[in-house]
Amino acid sequence: MTNTYSEEIKLIAKPGEIPYAKGLEGIPIGESTKSFVDGLGGRLVYHGHSIEELCEKSSYEEVFYLLLYDRLPKESELKDLGRLMRSYREIPSELYDLIAKQAPRYGVHPMSVMRTAVSALAAYDETTEDDTPSEQCRQSIRIVSKIATIAAAIARARLGKPMLSPRAELSHAGNFYYMLTGSAPDDFYAELMDVLLILHADHECNASTFAAVTVRSTLSDLYSAVVAGICALKGPLHGGANEEVMRMLQAIGSLDNVERFLEDAMSQKLRIHGFGHRVYKIMDPRADILRRQAREVTRRAGTEHWLETAERIEKVMAEKYGQRGIWPNVDFFSGVVMASMGIESPMFTPIFAVGRSAGWTAHALEQWVDNRIFRPRFIYIGPEEEPYTPIRERK
Amino acid sequence: MTNTYSEEIKLIAKPGEIPYAKGLEGIPIGESTKSFVDGLGGRLVYHGHSIEELCEKSSYEEVFYLLLYDRLPKESELKDLGRLMRSYREIPSELYDLIAKQAPRYGVHPMSVMRTAVSALAAYDETTEDDTPSEQCRQSIRIVSKIATIAAAIARARLGKPMLSPRAELSHAGNFYYMLTGSAPDDFYAELMDVLLILHADHECNASTFAAVTVRSTLSDLYSAVVAGICALKGPLHGGANEEVMRMLQAIGSLDNVERFLEDAMSQKLRIHGFGHRVYKIMDPRADILRRQAREVTRRAGTEHWLETAERIEKVMAEKYGQRGIWPNVDFFSGVVMASMGIESPMFTPIFAVGRSAGWTAHALEQWVDNRIFRPRFIYIGPEEEPYTPIRERK
Repeated sequence: MTNTYSEEIKLIAKPGEIPYAKGLEGIPIGESTKSFVDGLGGRLVYHGHSIEELCEKSSYEEVFYLLLYDRLPKESELKDLGRLMRSYREIPSELYDLIAKQAPRYGVHPMSVMRTAVSALAAYDETTEDDTPSEQCRQSIRIVSKIATIAAAIARARLGKPMLSPRAELSHAGNFYYMLTGSAPDDFYAELMDVLLILHADHECNASTFAAVTVRSTLSDLYSAVVAGICALKGPLHGGANEEVMRMLQAIGSLDNVERFLEDAMSQKLRIHGFGHRVYKIMDPRADILRRQAREVTRRAGTEHWLETAERIEKVMAEKYGQRGIWPNVDFFSGVVMASMGIESPMFTPIFAVGRSAGWTAHALEQWVDNRIFRPRFIYIGPEEEPYTPIRERK
Repeated sequence: MTNTYSEEIKLIAKPGEIPYAKGLEGIPIGESTKSFVDGLGGRLVYHGHSIEELCEKSSYEEVFYLLLYDRLPKESELKDLGRLMRSYREIPSELYDLIAKQAPRYGVHPMSVMRTAVSALAAYDETTEDDTPSEQCRQSIRIVSKIATIAAAIARARLGKPMLSPRAELSHAGNFYYMLTGSAPDDFYAELMDVLLILHADHECNASTFAAVTVRSTLSDLYSAVVAGICALKGPLHGGANEEVMRMLQAIGSLDNVERFLEDAMSQKLRIHGFGHRVYKIMDPRADILRRQAREVTRRAGTEHWLETAERIEKVMAEKYGQRGIWPNVDFFSGVVMASMGIESPMFTPIFAVGRSAGWTAHALEQWVDNRIFRPRFIYIGPEEEPYTPIRERK
C-alpha cells in the first residue's frame, strides 16, 4: 500500500501545487486476471490467450466463459452456457415498447436508449438484489445475452423497421446479426460478427470498465455496474470514437482529399479520431485484425473506397506521428467494417457495448470478491473561508 | 505529474507483488473548487462556506448555485434560478407511467427505478448532446429540478398513492416535501427538508461523484454522468447505508437490547452501518447537524425512542472504537430524521440522490473544463500465455 498523500496532509492547495496523475494515467488501481494490454509489444491477451488466437479459433460464447470463469470451458460447459444464453435472449414486451418510443426520437442517441433499456431490465430480474456468486453469474449471462437483443431492437426501431425476436438455432453473434439486419448470416458474416464481439469483449482497465468497477465497489448491483459502463462508453473519447471515424471518412469523400483534410484538421488542432491510445504505443493488435477483416468485407460490399481512404489516412498519420507512438486503434477500422456490413454509424458504439458487456460483468464480479470502495480525493483549490454576505449586499 | 509506474514497466505480476492504493485511498485524482472535507478537523466546506453556516442561513437553491458557479448568487440571480427550477419541475407523462409500472414491483429498489427514470429523461431533453457551457448549466438545472419529482413519484407509486404534480409556489425543498407526503410543509418541515438536501448536496470525491466524473471524462453527456452517480450511490457501502442504519434500529427494537445486539454483531464481524468514514477521523459534521434536527423531529413525531437507541449505540461504539477514529457519519442520524418525517426507509437513498444531484452535475461541469479521460491500469495477475487446447481435449 502506497499512499502518496498522508491523511495528515490537508488536500487544500493552489492550482498545480500538489502533483497528481491526470486521468489516472499509468496508475494501477487493482489486480485482475481478466486481460493484459502490452502497450509496447502491441499485444492483447484475455487470461493467457492472445486476441489473434481467440479470433481465429474461439467464439464469443467461449470468450465470455473465459472472462467470467478464468479458464476455457469444457465441451459440456460451453453447451450449457450457450443454452442458457439462448434461453435468456428474449426481453420483456415493455422494453420493446420503451425502445419503440425512444429510439426513433430525433436527436436521441442509441446509447441513451440502451442505457435506459438495460437499466429498466433490472426491474424484471427478480434476483437483481441477490449477490450470491451463482446468481451474479446468472445475472451476467442474462445481461450479456439480452443486451444484444436490446441493441438490435434499437437499430431496427431507429430505421422504422419491425423489431425481430431472437432465433434460438443461431449462435450469439449469428443471432445478433440476424436481429440487426433481418437475414440470417452466411458463414462469413457470422464469423465476422463473432470476431467483432470478441475483439471488443474486454480491454483491461478502460474508462467504461473502470466506471463499472467503481460502481460495483459500493456493492451496488450488477445492472448498475453495466449501466455505468454504458454511460462511459457513450463518450466520444471512448466508444463514441468509431462513429467519429466514419464521419471523418464520409467528410473526406475521396482519396485525393485525404492530405488536405488532415492538414486542415491538424492546423486547427482537431482530434483525428481512431488514432492514438493511452496504453498502446505501437499498432493496436485489434486494428490489425480488423484491417484484415475490412479487406474481405469491403470487397463483398463494394466499399473498397472506405478502406483505401482509411489506409491513406493511416499512411499520412504514420509519417507524421508514428515516431511519437500515435497509431491506429481499434476504432479506426471497426467503422469501415461495420459500415460495410450495412450498419448505420450511430449503432457502432452500441455494438461495441454488446461485446464489452462480457468484460464489464466479468470485472464487476472480480471486484466483488476482494472489494474496497473507490473513494479517492480531490485537491481542493477553492477558498478555505468566505464570508456569508447577506444576499442584498452581494455584488 | 507523478506516474508511479512507468509505461515501460509491463503491469504483469504475481498477486501482491506491485503495490497499489486499494480503493484509491488518499490518492488525489484532480483539482476541484467545489467542496473540501477536512477529515481530521471534522469540517465540510462548500466553496469556502461551512456546512453549518449554509444549513443555518442558506437554501438548497442557493447552495446549488454556489456549487455550479463557485459563488453565492445575487438576489436577482437566485430568483432566476428559482424560476428556472420551478419551470423545470414537471416530467413527461411517459415517465410517470414508467414509474407507476416499475416502482410497485416486488423486490425492485427505488434507486433502480430512479436510475431508469433519469436515464429516460435524457430522451426528452433536446439539448442532451449539446455541450456548450450554457446548455450544460441548463441541463444541470433540469436534472436537479426533475430528479425531485422523480423521487417523489417513486415514493408515492411504491405505496399505491396517487403521484402528485409539483406546486410552483413552494421552494425546491418545500415542493419536494409536498410531493412526497401529500401535504405542504409548515416552516419546520420545509426547513428540515432544505437542511437534508443541503447536507447531502456535495462531498468532494465520494464514490458516486467519482463515478460521475469518470463517465464525464469520456465527454459523455450530463445525464449519463448523473445516471452513473445514481448507480454508485445505490450501493450499501455508499448511499445505501442510511437504509441499513434504520434496519438496525428496528432490529434492536428497545434500548435494553443495544449492548447485546452490538456485541453479537461485532463477534460475527458484521459491519455496523452509519459508523466510520474514509476521510473523517472524528465526528462527521453532518451527523452533528442531523442529531440536532433529530431532537426536534423525533419529539414532534413521537419517535424519541429511535434517537435514544441511536445515541446509546453511539455511546457504546465511541467507547469501543472512538480511539480508532470510527465515529458516526452522515448516514447514522439521517435515517432517524427521515423515518420521523414518515418516509419509508427504501426512500432514504433516493432522497440522498435528490440532494447529491447538485454535486454530481457541478463536478461533471468542472471535469469538462479541464478534461482528461480516466484510464488507469489493472495489474495483470493472470497467466501470460496459455495453450489453446482443442475443446474435446480439455479436462
